Amino acid sequence: MDDDVTFAVLGTGGIGRRTLDVARHKEGLTPVAACDRNGVAVDHDGLDVDELLDATEGNIASGPEPDGDTPATPTDDYASDGGAAAVGGGSVGDGPASDGVKQAGDDAGVVASAQGEPTETPIDDVIEESEAIDAVLLALPNLEHDFIPRVAERFAGAGYEGVLVDVLKRSRVIGMLDDRADTLEASGITFVCGAGATPGFLTGAAALAAQSFVEVESVEIWWGVGLKSGYEDNRGTVREDIAHLDGYDIETAREMSEDEIEELIDDHDGRLEFHDMEHADDVLLERAGVCDAEDVSVGGVLDVRSDEKPTTTTVRVTGTTFDGERGTNTFELDDATSMEANVNGPALGYLKAAVLRNRAGDYGVYGPSEVMPSF
Amino acid sequence: MDDDVTFAVLGTGGIGRRTLDVARHKEGLTPVAACDRNGVAVDHDGLDVDELLDATEGNIASGPEPDGDTPATPTDDYASDGGAAAVGGGSVGDGPASDGVKQAGDDAGVVASAQGEPTETPIDDVIEESEAIDAVLLALPNLEHDFIPRVAERFAGAGYEGVLVDVLKRSRVIGMLDDRADTLEASGITFVCGAGATPGFLTGAAALAAQSFVEVESVEIWWGVGLKSGYEDNRGTVREDIAHLDGYDIETAREMSEDEIEELIDDHDGRLEFHDMEHADDVLLERAGVCDAEDVSVGGVLDVRSDEKPTTTTVRVTGTTFDGERGTNTFELDDATSMEANVNGPALGYLKAAVLRNRAGDYGVYGPSEVMPSF
Repeated sequence: MDDDVTFAVLGTGGIGRRTLDVARHKEGLTPVAACDRNGVAVDHDGLDVDELLDATEGNIASGPEPDGDTPATPTDDYASDGGAAAVGGGSVGDGPASDGVKQAGDDAGVVASAQGEPTETPIDDVIEESEAIDAVLLALPNLEHDFIPRVAERFAGAGYEGVLVDVLKRSRVIGMLDDRADTLEASGITFVCGAGATPGFLTGAAALAAQSFVEVESVEIWWGVGLKSGYEDNRGTVREDIAHLDGYDIETAREMSEDEIEELIDDHDGRLEFHDMEHADDVLLERAGVCDAEDVSVGGVLDVRSDEKPTTTTVRVTGTTFDGERGTNTFELDDATSMEANVNGPALGYLKAAVLRNRAGDYGVYGPSEVMPSF
Repeated sequence: MDDDVTFAVLGTGGIGRRTLDVARHKEGLTPVAACDRNGVAVDHDGLDVDELLDATEGNIASGPEPDGDTPATPTDDYASDGGAAAVGGGSVGDGPASDGVKQAGDDAGVVASAQGEPTETPIDDVIEESEAIDAVLLALPNLEHDFIPRVAERFAGAGYEGVLVDVLKRSRVIGMLDDRADTLEASGITFVCGAGATPGFLTGAAALAAQSFVEVESVEIWWGVGLKSGYEDNRGTVREDIAHLDGYDIETAREMSEDEIEELIDDHDGRLEFHDMEHADDVLLERAGVCDAEDVSVGGVLDVRSDEKPTTTTVRVTGTTFDGERGTNTFELDDATSMEANVNGPALGYLKAAVLRNRAGDYGVYGPSEVMPSF
């Protein structure tokens, strides 16, 4: 079929695995490759997702999720060793181990799947197959800020012509991707960056809601996440979020032990409230001309002891119309929609839309406020 | 500047004139041509919008607005005479005159502007200048259902490489544009159809709101319009809307006299409530794969005696997530945002976005749920 999209997932932690899960519910999306730190699975007729998900169920970590921060180990390796040390979508950094990387073990993860092969160069292995892959979702822990940009560069270096999508969070990574825009464009890559929930879905909603106005004065993104049953799968994200609490930063959050994190969560009765988070919504909306980055605020409430959302996820865009009226347009997600649904649905939606643009010859780096995700 | 967009407006009725107005507040949009039934104004350095708006202030009508219905006069003329009889953005059909077209008079409209020149072939005149025009907004009354599709064809016939955007309403026109997609694509045209408020802005919001779900069961678009001061400028739209009232259809609405319309409005104390309107949101969302057309409903309340909105404009998308939860995501426009702000802002937003795609070589027919409008 013409409209069919084949895709690969780099990293089979929470986000990578859920992407494979959600893709089963979407038409025209065929996963053909997946990899983690130790293994790679490729089947150009389509992976057996059920089997793969079962096999990778243990890929959980408390380290930085995509776009975390500086890694625990020297990162020049990633470029030279094919990414072996970096791939894993979550198995990185566990507890206070700023000098240790938790290994999932030789027979855990993708290699435990009947479809998996052990490898020391998982990213290179996928790149080698990439001529038959329309799109690649980078569900990698961004160990260094420039890790995802550098992975993108490696795809470009190999002459990849297709789509790359990431679900990074931090504002500072966007510029690093923009710096590589010419290289990616020359290769024939369409890159959609920050294509999860926030940035991503909610950034797009803000850009759309801004259409009533000729001047936007503020964008407020406020999220609620109930993460009781999903807690184990998302420890990395929780740790990263802690960096946004008053009195914490990326370094202090990284250095906390599991016990210290549990204690902190106890002190807050399982409910953490965040303000002024460094989410790339700000630079992405500025990049799209909607408003200045400083006019964008991202915050929310995380409840790790309930699956009910502690607050409703809302985007509020306030501006002035051409006829001089001031107003606030609002986008609200139903409390019944999980964080997972709102990250992975849009990630695949942006991926599909990017494939259409790539096929039309439209290359370069785009943000989620410049692409309408496909359904 | 690289990002600068030059555009033309065909038709200087309510929508065409407001588009020129809103464009003054947007960066990088330079109007270089405008025409109506009797005249054309072209200045590739940029029209003097203030002067043009003053001159065209009388271009108001009660006939069908863009995408109205079958015309009062034979339409083969439109193709052969350069569209002279058809252009005017509103000066068509006034009252019961199913055999008469109200003429604005030789010295009304664009020709009354110091920038205007009289012409009998306004559309052809714009087409002649179109090599230097990035985008054309078709703010034409769609006298026949296929009028706008045929205008698009004429641009393609002249080898136009650029953007066409319309703000049509009716579902049945979309297929006619799709039928011409190959012709438009071959010419190098990027056409965004139905790019006003509904369809348009709200269709896009529905497509985005659907991203939480893997299956969408309903899309409800509900609008409120307070049209007291804008009533005179929007009589055509009101007449068209009346066709959606219980007991009325396009034919009966067309044949009503001004007095009959006023009487009807009196009977409803100035407030008309509409259900199940034929708005192209349905086919556009189906086309984008979001849901079946029949799962989309469009309705609203029009108050011609108040500028306050009688109800809040809302998009509600109900669906099921990949993890089996059912929910409703909501997009709500502030009551302070006028219908005009919500039609013309998005129309220009879609136009700008379409120019970027056109410049990237992405041609064809797109709906508003496939393009993220630029700011």
